Formats: sequence, C-alpha cells, structure tokens
Amino acid sequence: MTERESRLSTFDPPMRGQYARSHEMNKLGVHALVWAGDLTPESTRKVISQTKAAGFDLVELSLHGPKVMDLSLTRDLLQEHGLEIGCSRGLTFDADVSSDDPAAVSRGLALLEEGVSITAELGGNYFGGILYGAMAKYSAPITPQGRRHAVDSLKRIADFALKKGVTLGLEVVNRYESNLLNTASQALDMLDEVDAPNVVVHLDTYHMNIEESDFMQPVLACGKRLGYVHIGESNRGYLGSGTIDFAQFFHALAMIDYKGVVTFESFSSTVVNEQLSNALAIWRNLWEDSMDLATHARAFMAGGINAAAKAKAHH
Amino acid sequence: MTERESRLSTFDPPMRGQYARSHEMNKLGVHALVWAGDLTPESTRKVISQTKAAGFDLVELSLHGPKVMDLSLTRDLLQEHGLEIGCSRGLTFDADVSSDDPAAVSRGLALLEEGVSITAELGGNYFGGILYGAMAKYSAPITPQGRRHAVDSLKRIADFALKKGVTLGLEVVNRYESNLLNTASQALDMLDEVDAPNVVVHLDTYHMNIEESDFMQPVLACGKRLGYVHIGESNRGYLGSGTIDFAQFFHALAMIDYKGVVTFESFSSTVVNEQLSNALAIWRNLWEDSMDLATHARAFMAGGINAAAKAKAHH
Amino acid sequence: MTERESRLSTFDPPMRGQYARSHEMNKLGVHALVWAGDLTPESTRKVISQTKAAGFDLVELSLHGPKVMDLSLTRDLLQEHGLEIGCSRGLTFDADVSSDDPAAVSRGLALLEEGVSITAELGGNYFGGILYGAMAKYSAPITPQGRRHAVDSLKRIADFALKKGVTLGLEVVNRYESNLLNTASQALDMLDEVDAPNVVVHLDTYHMNIEESDFMQPVLACGKRLGYVHIGESNRGYLGSGTIDFAQFFHALAMIDYKGVVTFESFSSTVVNEQLSNALAIWRNLWEDSMDLATHARAFMAGGINAAAKAKAHH
Amino acid sequence: MTERESRLSTFDPPMRGQYARSHEMNKLGVHALVWAGDLTPESTRKVISQTKAAGFDLVELSLHGPKVMDLSLTRDLLQEHGLEIGCSRGLTFDADVSSDDPAAVSRGLALLEEGVSITAELGGNYFGGILYGAMAKYSAPITPQGRRHAVDSLKRIADFALKKGVTLGLEVVNRYESNLLNTASQALDMLDEVDAPNVVVHLDTYHMNIEESDFMQPVLACGKRLGYVHIGESNRGYLGSGTIDFAQFFHALAMIDYKGVVTFESFSSTVVNEQLSNALAIWRNLWEDSMDLATHARAFMAGGINAAAKAKAHH
Repeated sequence: MTERESRLSTFDPPMRGQYARSHEMNKLGVHALVWAGDLTPESTRKVISQTKAAGFDLVELSLHGPKVMDLSLTRDLLQEHGLEIGCSRGLTFDADVSSDDPAAVSRGLALLEEGVSITAELGGNYFGGILYGAMAKYSAPITPQGRRHAVDSLKRIADFALKKGVTLGLEVVNRYESNLLNTASQALDMLDEVDAPNVVVHLDTYHMNIEESDFMQPVLACGKRLGYVHIGESNRGYLGSGTIDFAQFFHALAMIDYKGVVTFESFSSTVVNEQLSNALAIWRNLWEDSMDLATHARAFMAGGINAAAKAKAHH
Repeated sequence: MTERESRLSTFDPPMRGQYARSHEMNKLGVHALVWAGDLTPESTRKVISQTKAAGFDLVELSLHGPKVMDLSLTRDLLQEHGLEIGCSRGLTFDADVSSDDPAAVSRGLALLEEGVSITAELGGNYFGGILYGAMAKYSAPITPQGRRHAVDSLKRIADFALKKGVTLGLEVVNRYESNLLNTASQALDMLDEVDAPNVVVHLDTYHMNIEESDFMQPVLACGKRLGYVHIGESNRGYLGSGTIDFAQFFHALAMIDYKGVVTFESFSSTVVNEQLSNALAIWRNLWEDSMDLATHARAFMAGGINAAAKAKAHH
Repeated sequence: MTERESRLSTFDPPMRGQYARSHEMNKLGVHALVWAGDLTPESTRKVISQTKAAGFDLVELSLHGPKVMDLSLTRDLLQEHGLEIGCSRGLTFDADVSSDDPAAVSRGLALLEEGVSITAELGGNYFGGILYGAMAKYSAPITPQGRRHAVDSLKRIADFALKKGVTLGLEVVNRYESNLLNTASQALDMLDEVDAPNVVVHLDTYHMNIEESDFMQPVLACGKRLGYVHIGESNRGYLGSGTIDFAQFFHALAMIDYKGVVTFESFSSTVVNEQLSNALAIWRNLWEDSMDLATHARAFMAGGINAAAKAKAHH
Repeated sequence: MTERESRLSTFDPPMRGQYARSHEMNKLGVHALVWAGDLTPESTRKVISQTKAAGFDLVELSLHGPKVMDLSLTRDLLQEHGLEIGCSRGLTFDADVSSDDPAAVSRGLALLEEGVSITAELGGNYFGGILYGAMAKYSAPITPQGRRHAVDSLKRIADFALKKGVTLGLEVVNRYESNLLNTASQALDMLDEVDAPNVVVHLDTYHMNIEESDFMQPVLACGKRLGYVHIGESNRGYLGSGTIDFAQFFHALAMIDYKGVVTFESFSSTVVNEQLSNALAIWRNLWEDSMDLATHARAFMAGGINAAAKAKAHH
C-alpha cells in the first residue's frame, strides 16, 4: 500500500472496503482549540501530548493562521505520539470560492490548495470544514453564480486532493456561518454536482441542532457519504450541559454502520484563537479545565457509541 | 383606570396584581413577518386581518423601518379587529447603546425613544427585542465600557417608557445576534443593574435552544421577571419540524404560573423584510403558506399550554 | 369493488396500491374509552356522536365485553355519522393463543374469530391489539411451545380474516402487557413466520417509550408493514403532558410515507371499563373532560403530521 | 461519632448537615443484579469485587430471598473492599402493608423489620424500595383502608429504623409495580402523613419515564426530601440505548444540590433472580457483559453529573 493509499484508507468509504472492520470502534478525535489558541511549537507540543493523554486517536488542527505552524515538527510529534491528524478550516470573505468576484474565488482556491498540501505534509488524509465559502455571517443569500463558483472550485480542489491522497469534507454549518450549506440535504446535492470520489459530507451536532429537523434523518440521508463527524453541544460547552439529544444521533450513526472519525469540538473564552473565536462568536466562558472537558467528552462519545451498538444488537 | 394604567396592566407583573386571573389562558400572538415583509398600509391591513383570522389575540410589529408605517391607520385597524399590539426591534452597529462610541450610543437611544413612542401611539404597552445593542454578529466581545453604556441607556429609556406606560423587554438572543445577553442569567443580572419596575426578560425558544442548558431552568430563574415569550422552532420553521422540546418549555411556564403573552415567530424566504431577513440569516424556504403556518402554530401553542396545565393539575 | 375489497383498501398496503394518495392526510381516530367505559346502546351513541363532534374520522372499539354491544345499532350509527371503525382487544390467560395449554389456545382462537366477525359485521376492516396472547402481566417468559401456538393461531385467524376482508394488527406492547411482542423487531419476526398478506404491525408510542431505543428506528424497520398507529402519552394522559418526543415519531411516519390510521388512546380514572382499566393499571385521574382531551389530541396529531410533512418537504 | 450516627450521615439530610461538602461528587452505586442473580457466598464475593473493580462506591443488595445471604461474610467483604451498602426490596401480595387484610399487613411489617435489621447488620444506613406495598401488578386500585394501613406501617417501621440508624426510602415506581406511589407528588404526600425524620423519597428514572410529566419537576418538588436515586434506562438496558432525557434529570439534581447516592439499575435475561426478574417482567436480553455494562454506566453517570455541575456554574 502506498502512502497515498494508506492515507485514503481512513476517510473514503466509497473508494475502498476499509470499513469491513465492523467490530471496531470509531476513531475518536478532539479539536486543538480545546487545548491551545495557536499552533506555535510550544502550543503544538501541548496540543498533541494532551490529546494523547486524554486518550484520543486523532487531533484536528485548524488551519486558521497556518503560517506559524512548524509542519515537520508537527508531523514528528504526531508520529511520536501515535496520533492521526485531521485538518480543517473555513474561508474568508476576501478568499471565498462562493463569491461572485473571480479574484476572491482565486484567493479561496489558493487557500484550499494550501490546506490540502499542509494536510498531506502532516501525514493526514482528511481536510474538511467550510471549504465552499467564508466561515462568516453573510449579509445576503448566495447567488446562482456564487454557487456555481463553489461547485467548480470544489471539483478542481477535489482533483488536486485526490492526487495527494486527501479526502475533502464539506462541513454543514448553521446559517450564521454559511449561506450555502446549512443542511445535509444541501450538502448531498452539492456532492452530486461536484461528483468526485474523495468528497464527503461532514456533519456537526452543534449545527444540526439549529438547522435540521432531527438528529437522525440527516445521518440516514448521508449514509455512506458521511465521512466525518463533529460532536458539539448546543452551547459548545460540556457534552450533556445543553439541549442536544445525543442518543438519537449515536443511534443514527449505528444505523448506517458509520465507521469514520468522531471528533469533539468545544469553545470557551478560556482558550482563544482571536480570528476563530470571534468568527464563532465565543463570548462566554463555558469551561476552564481543558483536560477535564476532554476526558469527559471522550468518555461521553465512547459511551454513546457503545450504547447505540448495544441497542442495535439487542432490539 | 387611565390609558397608561390600562396599558401597563398586561405586561408588568411586579407593578400590579393583574395576573390574578390564573384560570385564564395566555394571550397568543404572532409576528407580523409571518404575513408580510413590510408595513405599508396594504401590508398592515393584511397583517392585522390575517392575524385575527388565524385566531390570535396580539400582533407583534417589528419596527425595522418604521418610517413607512401609518400609525393612526395601524391603531385604528387594531381596534377594529380587537387585537393587542407588541412592538419589537433590535439596534444597529451605527446606533448601538452598547457601543464604546458615545455618538453610536446616542443614536441608539434615539431609536429606543422612537420605539417607545411608536408603541404608545399604537396603543401598545410592550416594546421588546435587542434593545441593549445591535442585532448583529459582533466581531469581538462586549467591552466593560460598552456594557456600562447599555445599562445606563436602559435606565434612561426605562424611565422614559414608564411615563408612557410602556414595559421594556430584554430579549435574550443567541451569540450571532448579540455579544451581550445570550442567557437568561445574563439578562437577570442586567435587570438587577437597570433596576427599573418596567423592564422584564423576554425569552425565545429558538435562542434558548442554542444558548441555555435546557428549556426549564431559564424560565424558573426568571420567575415573575419573565414578561414576554417567543415560541420559535430550532430552524425557525413549523413548530414540530425541528429539535426543540416544547413540552419541557410549556411545563416550565406552567411551573412559574406565567400569564403573559406567548408569540409565535417564524421566518422563511417566502416573506422577506430585506433588512431583517438578512440580519437573521434567512436563506432557506421553510414554508410558503402563511395561514397554514400560523393556524398550525396557534393550535400547537394553545395545546402545549393546555397540556402543561393538565400535567400540573394531575401529577 | 366488492364490500370486502372496499374494507381491505384502508389497511393492507402490501395487497393494494391504495396509498398512492400521498397528498392526503392520515385518517385520525380515537379510542372509545375516552368517551365511555362500556358499549351499551346509550354509551355507543355517546361514543360515536362525540367522536364525530371532536372531528375524528374513525372510532376504535374495544371488544372487552362485546356481549353487550348491539352490532346493528353500532353499524347504523357509524354510517349515520360517516365514521370508520377499528376494533381491538387483548386475550386473557384463560383464552390465550400463546399458552402451552391447547384448551386455552382453543378458547383464544374462538375469541379471535369472534373479534374478526364482529369487525366485519360492524363494516370494519381492521382488528388489532394483543391478538397473540393475554393482555396481562405474565409471571414467566414465553415458552417455545407457547410461541409456536401463537404463530399457528395467527396463521389460522389470518386466513379466516382474509375471507372476511379484515386485516389483523399485532400491537407491540410493553413488558407488563405481554411477554411475547415488546418490540417492533419481534413483531416483524412474527410477521415473517405468520406469512399472511393481511397481518400488519401496530405501533403505539406509549409502549415504544418503554421498550424501543427511540421513536424512529421501529417505524423505519416496519416500513410498509406498519398498518396501524396508536398515539399515547408516556403517562397515558394529555398529549404533551409527558416525556414522549412526538416530533421524532411523526418525522418517522413521514419518512416511510405512512398513510394509515393514527388513533389517540388515553386512560383516566374518570372513564372506567373495570376489566380493561384494571388490566391497564389505571389508578390515577389524568383528565376529567373527555371532549377537551379529545379535541386537544386531534389538533396535536394533525399538527404533528403536518409539521413532519413540512419538514420533509423543506429540508 | 457513634456507629449509628455514622450510618445516618450519608442518607438523612433533614437530620444533619452532612451535605455541606458541596464540592464533592455524589456516591455512585450499582445494583447487585447487574452481577449475579442470587447472594450465595460465591455470588456475594463476585458482586462485591466486581462492584469495586468497576469503580463504584456502593453496592445495592436486593433482599428478595435474604435467607441465603451470609450477613457477616457480606459485611466483611464490604469492609475489605471499602464499599458502602444500600438495601432494597418490595413486598408481596401475601405480605403487603397496603392490604385491607390485617394478617397480610402484619406479615409485611415483619418483612420490613427484617429488612431494616439486615441493613443495620450489614453496616448500612439505607433501606429502600417498595416498602409501602407489593412489588406487583395489582388488579384494582388501592383502597382508603389499604392506604391507611400503609401509612401506619411506615410510621412504625420508621420508628424502628430510627433506633437502628437506618433511613427508609419510598421508591416511586410505575403503575405495573404499585397502585399506591406512582409519582413523586404522591410520595411527598405520604411523607407528610408518615411524618418521620428518617423517611425520604427515592426516584428512579425508569419509572419517572412512565409516570411523570418530565424529569425535572419531580426532582424539584422533592428538593431536600430526595434521599436516593436510581438511574435506569427506559428499556432497563444500557444507559443511552433508550429514550430517557438524562441530561434533564442530571440538571435537576444539580438544581437541588443533591448530594446523595446515585445507583445504576439494569436487568437482562443474562442475569436472573427468578422471583425478581419475573416480577419485573424481564423477558429480553439487553446485555451479556456485566462489566462492560457497569463501567459504561459509571462513566455515563459521572459524566452526566459533571456536565450538570458545569452547566450550573457557567450559565
């Protein structure tokens, strides 16, 4: 198996039969912003060692401000700790592949190419997020031309990513973070149009809670095209401190026999990445102790997945 | 009873014993944007006649763009149809009482005074919404000075409103629509500081679903300081088409013996107020038939309130 | 279309294409015990006229104590009021087709034949309930022989019912009312074994709340084999006064495009059928006013079905 | 502190200030039937060592068939493993303090005295369950005389228990397991009548799911009179495999600052106590691996309690 094949093996169900290991648990990840607001070498060491210490299999690095990241150091640390990597980002109004302005689209494409390249250089095979537009509160609906730009850009980037063994995940987010993909249904339509083997849907319970009819239908609609999952509480704090019916969501994952990564995401004023935190409207403190938060989340997710498997086996 | 006293009688629990009518149902309202995107005379006629036809007791008018409203026509139509009125609005960055910039604060105060005056001229006694800041996605947390400006402004406006027999409702909204009041707890703190007899908390299930731990605690925390309620689904569409546990919320209202107004709010691309719809990030069509939506909502709310009363009586 | 064909047309999806009318609402029913504890002529008149007055399309008559029922009067009243009819019952330990004792099985078969005949004589085409055993708290698990008796009995009764144009519904109930069919999955297994075209699954939200993993999976598992639905609250009182996530259930019905009957069931000490009420452990008063309960339930069910349809159309 | 005082210190909030340790976690327990169906010496060794190995603080022993229990062995094993003990049982029709028959009441009193004595001999201070009647499906409502017998019996037993330093917990169970106490409200009324300092309410989420309006109101109604908690899923299997909104329940415990024991209860055909399993209608297999079930449950409960504490601190 080549390095590229090896990378694809985690994330691309339509391309390979790697999910035959149906008795195995999903890999569990955590977003780096649980640990640190930047990716300086010092922060990167903390992020990776804490992720490992909390028992996770994967760390998700946000590429908002990747200039400071030391790629080879990061790659070495990941290997040293035996962790997998996922990368994510959203675009900006200035570099937005869903813009009507071709110059903004070009700058967006450049950011996406950079993201794919960084992912591959880090030894990862998954690059996801709001790859189809700005992660921002738009002030008007998407235009038909803007949507076309997004589809065309994703086709190009999917091709580029395929050569690097990277799968792209289109994260479905709420109305305040995108005017393009707010529901799984919209993402599936876009997947049909982009028509690339290495593009998957990325669902996030925090966003589903705002946009979807429930936590089961979107998962069933995606089926094998669901490639990545974010677990976030309704208030983005401790799992179990908000309103989300997580049992329903984990039952749905079991129904489609989802074997991909499940990554915890949480944001508090305690750990700030100025660009990302303000874009995400993180105004309150919902936790202080990253390790307590993360170990709690890991147990919560593993437990939810386990219970859903038992419910499926003993109904 | 003077006109002012009469107006206050609906909304100001701390000032009067008007809620002794414990056997009576809450008054049910509907937001005008269910019917029309503006308030031209033609639209106003439609809004008021449809509100009545759908069986509601009250219509909530949004004062975003009040210049076109014909106040005396509106007041006459309300009387003719036997409807009560609530007014609402949010401020803008340019006219924001929570700004660090005194000029923006002044412009915000002017908008609030205007809102109170319009409310009184329409024969109403309730003016609510994001009266404490811009209804917008902020790009940074509130500053201590900005918060002070908001408190001072609300004190002044509360005094002004008291003379006109108007109660002010501080609507608690999600992080993308305010950086100041995202939870009932924050609103109660602000009420303590403003310390005026005619300022109440206004809760909205749509926003609670994103920010609060559940649908009961915030209601219990408010108790008699809860003065107005918005019922909105998680996706702002049909009640019952999303993720909100409305039974829990209606049980909570019964627990505090809430006797105030309960108003339905829903937004779709079908009916657009350009300023408001874009501010609220309404990108999708969730319904087309306003009357079906509204009669469904009225039955849903009346049923939920009835069931909670029965649950309380027969436990 | 013969009378028999006409009767089958409502309940037997596998046999006919009668559910192509996808734009139409489900028929809504109510259980007679909402109105009266027996079926004397006077009670029957009340049951049927109140069912009609509350806006329902169908009344479900419990055949516990059918000796007192005047079949021709009942049939005439149904026609006069334009109502459809569903019949239901559970067996007893003494007449139990799942017993190890052949004599008890024979007595159970006789009760089932009687039920089918009454249903047909009333002009109905649906006979459901705990047709496979006693509606009672068993004191030991089902035996393999008992289960075989139940399957064989259902085969025979299904054949008998087919000739009379009657569909049989196996109601899935909680552990305290059967030791045989507590989950949809168990019912589907039994359907496979009985292998008759006129046997369907009958789900009831009250029982699902105790036995199933959630309110969606059992519905999806049944698909076109779901033939009848009971809507009951967790405490068997007012819909919305308990813990059931009805939105999830109605979403599931929309997902399988369910077009069958949806019947409301509720029990209180206010209206007592001594045999049935004690069998169902109705010790508390959860309501007094049958008409308020029933009109509330009808609006709740119609609203839930409507909201789910809208959620499906606008996702 | 005498031994008796020491025993009381865990369970009797009204008598002492022992719950001032508000920063401490609740003690977590597990029901012995997760591990073994009887209490032979061999089984007792297994129950106690597995309880400890799974990380619990307390084991709850069911006294259905206490004749085989070796009390001094059990007490020694508990001390050796550093575990606390809770005892529980329900009565039978033959020995039922809520019976109209004085002889049955006497036999019921004898069973209760025996239970208190065993609890004290084991070094425990909590004896709970259906102490007020038979754990069985009644065939008629409670009579006024039966209820009086129950109250009088509880007064007597409370006095007896007080002398032994034992607190009595009245477990609120569903309609199929009692015709007397199905809701917290009914239990609180009985507490008022019994009027003893060492009688508390014992809530169980499995039963609440069937009888109560939601998972918060009963807890708030009990407040400081809540003395013991059972966590059970709606299907009595894995936590998270059913329909219960546990987040709501844990939030409620945090609201009343509950510091008592929280014990996990689950039943499957895998581990059978013939008398208890049939009384509880355990017909299905919901799990096979006791240790996986128990460690999962412990993490689930600790996580839910932690998340609720965080939600309370950061709202």
